Amino acid sequence: MTVELISVGTELLLGNIVNTNAAYLAEQCARLGLSCFYQTVVGDNAGRLAQILHTALSRSDVLILSGGLGPTQDDLTKETAAGVMGMALTRDEHTAKRLQEYFSRRKLELTENNWKQAMVPEGAIVIDNENGTAPGIIMEKEEKRVILLPGPPGELIPMFENAIAPYLAGAVPGVIHSQTVKLCGIGESKAETMVADLIAAQSNPTIAPYAKTGEVHLRITARASAEKEAKKLIKPVVKELKNRFGMNVYTTDEAVTLEQAVVDLLLANHLTVTTAESCTGGLLSARLTGVPGVSEVFKSGQVTYSNKAKHKLLGVKKPSLDKYGAVSENVAREMAKGAALASRADVAVAITGIAGPDGGSSSKPVGLVYIACRVRGKTKVKSYHFTGNRNKVRENSVVAALTLMRHCILEYYSEVTFR
Amino acid sequence: MTVELISVGTELLLGNIVNTNAAYLAEQCARLGLSCFYQTVVGDNAGRLAQILHTALSRSDVLILSGGLGPTQDDLTKETAAGVMGMALTRDEHTAKRLQEYFSRRKLELTENNWKQAMVPEGAIVIDNENGTAPGIIMEKEEKRVILLPGPPGELIPMFENAIAPYLAGAVPGVIHSQTVKLCGIGESKAETMVADLIAAQSNPTIAPYAKTGEVHLRITARASAEKEAKKLIKPVVKELKNRFGMNVYTTDEAVTLEQAVVDLLLANHLTVTTAESCTGGLLSARLTGVPGVSEVFKSGQVTYSNKAKHKLLGVKKPSLDKYGAVSENVAREMAKGAALASRADVAVAITGIAGPDGGSSSKPVGLVYIACRVRGKTKVKSYHFTGNRNKVRENSVVAALTLMRHCILEYYSEVTFR
Repeated sequence: MTVELISVGTELLLGNIVNTNAAYLAEQCARLGLSCFYQTVVGDNAGRLAQILHTALSRSDVLILSGGLGPTQDDLTKETAAGVMGMALTRDEHTAKRLQEYFSRRKLELTENNWKQAMVPEGAIVIDNENGTAPGIIMEKEEKRVILLPGPPGELIPMFENAIAPYLAGAVPGVIHSQTVKLCGIGESKAETMVADLIAAQSNPTIAPYAKTGEVHLRITARASAEKEAKKLIKPVVKELKNRFGMNVYTTDEAVTLEQAVVDLLLANHLTVTTAESCTGGLLSARLTGVPGVSEVFKSGQVTYSNKAKHKLLGVKKPSLDKYGAVSENVAREMAKGAALASRADVAVAITGIAGPDGGSSSKPVGLVYIACRVRGKTKVKSYHFTGNRNKVRENSVVAALTLMRHCILEYYSEVTFR
Repeated sequence: MTVELISVGTELLLGNIVNTNAAYLAEQCARLGLSCFYQTVVGDNAGRLAQILHTALSRSDVLILSGGLGPTQDDLTKETAAGVMGMALTRDEHTAKRLQEYFSRRKLELTENNWKQAMVPEGAIVIDNENGTAPGIIMEKEEKRVILLPGPPGELIPMFENAIAPYLAGAVPGVIHSQTVKLCGIGESKAETMVADLIAAQSNPTIAPYAKTGEVHLRITARASAEKEAKKLIKPVVKELKNRFGMNVYTTDEAVTLEQAVVDLLLANHLTVTTAESCTGGLLSARLTGVPGVSEVFKSGQVTYSNKAKHKLLGVKKPSLDKYGAVSENVAREMAKGAALASRADVAVAITGIAGPDGGSSSKPVGLVYIACRVRGKTKVKSYHFTGNRNKVRENSVVAALTLMRHCILEYYSEVTFR
């Protein structure tokens, strides 16, 4: 079964917003085992939208439209799609009641144009919108399906998850199941080379590598008659990937982020953590504190941007700053030590580097970063040479720090040694 | 002149990456005064791409393709587009030489398939790629133009800026000029209401509002025969917007971010700044330190996540924590005071709030945030009720803190009073 995505909205054509809906829907459809060959963006224009719909219906089985379901005159996705499908619009009393409740609960006035959102194509399946006013719509006619979703991601995503994904899963023969093996501390090309033979030989399940900043995610997708069968197909592949990538695998759970994995490791070993950041300026602590429940392990962190602050707050020795410079292995080590002693945390991570655009030299170029991690008195310092702009250098530093923290904690509690 | 964007890449159809190139190109084309009615995404498939090209050529004057210019067999954008345009591929010696230099400079081996990138459509304009191997291509034939750009944003963006934008500007009669008025401390709907009459009456220049997290940007675009004329048309509109929005205008320079504006204000008044963050966990300091040259004003910051850290590092009184709770006006005020005294910074900002998903109560719900800003001993505390998930609450808190910092500094140095 083939699916085609059509995003409706002049704001997309003007580049006012990035089309994250299309990426989200494309990924979800791929997971459901649907093939998608085309995505189109068109403005809030009935003639052009109708033409796009005719073309799409001639080449795809399922069309998923997003946007243009609002209450104003500009919003004409529903009217146009119903017209192309030859369906008349009729008032849906259930939706009318939902709208009334929605507005009264928020003490908002329901104006005349809002009733437009209670009109639905005759015979269509209506999906309640838990996070807004416009209902979702599914139209079915002669093997073709046209699905209309509201544009705001906060409405589209829950509606897709709760109603559209199960609907589409029911329409696809068999089930699709996928699992993700997430790697850190290994480059994209190296990881891809290490699974090239598996990818070349694959049919079911398939393996697809996704490169993230400092991480590689390998998604394994299987198709079978039942979920249990699909999981059975995936299991040996996960095992094989774990064998090949060993400690570089930080999770096999789609929902777990690298910072979550690090926090989980701290929690499991009853360790507290502190941060001492120079060039990243708080990005690492911000990422750690993005994990709900982090307060059990993270009590405080320091951003020591100036040399004076490194000396005063972390006890970095002035001769070290003078002799080696702030961006050096010695200073990174002293920062971690000082942070651990000041906060009495079990784990202390320190980052010092040159994020650019200025401040680089031939011996210490932009992108040079030292990261130290101290676990209960035992310290490891690594140097990195990142490329890209200030933002990229800082982002890569944070992922490298999380990776190093994970490695150091694992090393401390086992006999594993990382390069 | 109408333009159409065609993004080529299976990774887009699978949702592996978000199509930021399309948003970038759409925005740039809008700035150049080109009308764009369609954007299409298609995979690395010659048949489907050729069909898309025929359709696009039948309805648009300029096609901009991105992606599929790599050296592998999968990359067939150039071959397919040249075929549709009826142009044969020929070896470009200039590009061949550039490739050779590119590889030898990086001490990489130039393999046989790399020579594919030196093949160009006969008679096409070849654009050097300063950041990669694939050259850009412009094909012209009977009023139609087909432009091929490499997919990686780090190659596409500079190539568009340096070569394609001037080329397209030369093809459009007259010039387009735009300027952005950026607002903080005002909601999107309020800002839009305040310019509704201007937007309704506009023709040249036009005003377009862009909503960002906690900010509103108003872009004014004028079309004229020469840049000087266009600027002359824009000037009175900027003046009118400044009159209407007053101190909510933080810049009229497209390149200046809110954090840059705050850092500039600190620099101009010779003020140093420090941060004391609880729920934002370092996001504010990270954003400030994203500004190059911030080291002049920012020396250190604290992330005090636990009550103990607030007491120990910032001197927040234990009775205050017990009586009012960590998320309170009193504690925010004491955090700012403690941070100012400890760091001797002129300006201290403190953020304490409930980011969720847990930790909320009926009297202190998730989204409640207190922000204190102290400028040379004078403190202002504001409370906020943000909606959305943990991430949204934290992001909104950072923008609110930057806005409050700006207001407090301006108030301190003038007689302005902000609500």
